[in-house]
Amino acid sequence: MSLLIALTLATAAATDAADHHDEAPTSEPRWSIVIHGGAGTILRENMSAEKDAEIRAALDAALRAGEAVLRDGGSSMDAVTAAITLLEDDPNFNAGRGAVFTWEGTNSLDASIMRGDTLEAGAVAGLSTTRHPILAARAVMEDSPHVLLSGEGADTFATQKGLEQVDPAYFYTQERHDALIRYKAHVEAQEQLSQLDIDHKFGTVGAVALDVHGVISAGTSTGGMTGKRWGRIGDSPIIGAGTYANDRCGISATGTGEKFIRLSVAHAICTMDVSATPPAEELAKRGTTLIIPLAPHQQLQRAADHLIARVGELDGSGGVIGLSSTGAPIYSFDTPGMYRGHSTSQGWRAVAIYKDEE
Amino acid sequence: MSLLIALTLATAAATDAADHHDEAPTSEPRWSIVIHGGAGTILRENMSAEKDAEIRAALDAALRAGEAVLRDGGSSMDAVTAAITLLEDDPNFNAGRGAVFTWEGTNSLDASIMRGDTLEAGAVAGLSTTRHPILAARAVMEDSPHVLLSGEGADTFATQKGLEQVDPAYFYTQERHDALIRYKAHVEAQEQLSQLDIDHKFGTVGAVALDVHGVISAGTSTGGMTGKRWGRIGDSPIIGAGTYANDRCGISATGTGEKFIRLSVAHAICTMDVSATPPAEELAKRGTTLIIPLAPHQQLQRAADHLIARVGELDGSGGVIGLSSTGAPIYSFDTPGMYRGHSTSQGWRAVAIYKDEE
Repeated sequence: MSLLIALTLATAAATDAADHHDEAPTSEPRWSIVIHGGAGTILRENMSAEKDAEIRAALDAALRAGEAVLRDGGSSMDAVTAAITLLEDDPNFNAGRGAVFTWEGTNSLDASIMRGDTLEAGAVAGLSTTRHPILAARAVMEDSPHVLLSGEGADTFATQKGLEQVDPAYFYTQERHDALIRYKAHVEAQEQLSQLDIDHKFGTVGAVALDVHGVISAGTSTGGMTGKRWGRIGDSPIIGAGTYANDRCGISATGTGEKFIRLSVAHAICTMDVSATPPAEELAKRGTTLIIPLAPHQQLQRAADHLIARVGELDGSGGVIGLSSTGAPIYSFDTPGMYRGHSTSQGWRAVAIYKDEE
Repeated sequence: MSLLIALTLATAAATDAADHHDEAPTSEPRWSIVIHGGAGTILRENMSAEKDAEIRAALDAALRAGEAVLRDGGSSMDAVTAAITLLEDDPNFNAGRGAVFTWEGTNSLDASIMRGDTLEAGAVAGLSTTRHPILAARAVMEDSPHVLLSGEGADTFATQKGLEQVDPAYFYTQERHDALIRYKAHVEAQEQLSQLDIDHKFGTVGAVALDVHGVISAGTSTGGMTGKRWGRIGDSPIIGAGTYANDRCGISATGTGEKFIRLSVAHAICTMDVSATPPAEELAKRGTTLIIPLAPHQQLQRAADHLIARVGELDGSGGVIGLSSTGAPIYSFDTPGMYRGHSTSQGWRAVAIYKDEE
């Protein structure tokens, strides 16, 4: 145990040495937020300087919205919805405006949200007129006995709760519609999809926050995958798959949703016990063994890496973001890039796109 | 460990002593199946002798259908669908014909299925014309890249796959429609629902089977809850909540679905590590300690009991059935009754309704 403690203290010392004006010296942040805007084949060579800057500015703005809530002592639930509604409004991301198109040429929006202390959760699937799906998910959680509402009924519920309704054309973007046309042409020609087109499935957004009251909340919002048919629902509105939060952890996922559902990825990460020591018999056989327990965020990081590896074994790909109960950010993804960012009360702040960025 | 082995052998000896004509002496069954028809306030005093006999006959028939598949070396997937399609056809259960009614007076059917060796899964939500929702879930698993399809699109998919379509009136039963009328009257009068009406939410059916090839499959089918609105989706079509299977376990759940989703009940049971020995430090403190590892089915039973207790903590109720990889049946429920049955290649066979039945 002493080795671990030494490492933790060293990190804390480094933290305190940095420029953290409004924070008393402590090894744990008072609040923390982590966001994502999807994972995929995001490569420097395919990204213009303008697009790169635009994405970073959007992630920065979403982080700032969440930070403002948390700094004022607001709830992690408010921070998560503040960050996600901005990303939903931004056509750069596959959620809200800028969502991908279904096979029928419509936009069909899914979202979910969960708070870790009470395990309350809400989700919506197949919205077509509610501007901010994440707010509809939150309304399901707070104002209904249900967890998951779907289709027209979910828009009706959101309308009854006073959430902004828009003409379905609001969600339209030329780029996403072009992607549908290309996708349908490929499918009809039975051709293999290029990596670029496969990546049009990605772009889901999500956020996880820890507030000063110690509550973790997590949320996810998406348009799903280009060309989806038959009312397909992916992992984003599935509590346990795309989103989960408990008193230990919060997770938001993005990627090939079906594989994330089959592994209950978000729930698995938040509940996996990677700290267990070997069975007593095994320990006895080994004789004297130094066992260094993992810190909570190390356990979660290991669990997240394990689950993303398992998604890969099922021929899926994608990533997750998360927070431990101590506010430490978790990232794991197997794609060349993931739009992501995090910020804590201690001033640790970063926005990143490519895998090689810290 | 020796204590545990001794107990297992004693059980095996008792098993072999019974009348098991077609089975070589062994401590584990070659195949096994467990089914349920819902959990709720099922009390002897409210049940006529005729209804009691009818339910037992229906459970028996579903078991026999599954047994026939498994005895011939068929797959657990086939056994699960054989048992569930019979229960879907039986108006005594809230699945297929006999499903409860939505607020709008329609039937809206959900189902899911999963095989444990490959983690393949399929599910449907909001069907209204497909006679056997469990077969639609299976078609999603086997013939689409998706896991969950919803609404009209899911019926369209099932039609394209050649599954029997029926007029929505096929699902109508007087009893369930009366329950809707009562429910709406209560809600409109803001009255408290009686226990009997609350129980009209229940009646979900499910099956879990282990075949001679060692593969576990699990499936669940339901009409949801009486008076559901806004496209409400419960736990039954949610892989991880109402249904899960892996190489260790298969689970099908029934009850207040929202609470089962928030706890990812089926996934939690199948992955919970209840065998972990205490941390090494703790062991060192205790000095010499005899630790008796739990057998796989004991671990699962403990995990199932733990999750049903947690559902209760969230003011929910219901139950689960399951199988371990050794074919041992798992039951856990907090209601006065649960329609259930199990059968193994060794001739262990039982159908039960009330809590006090073995």
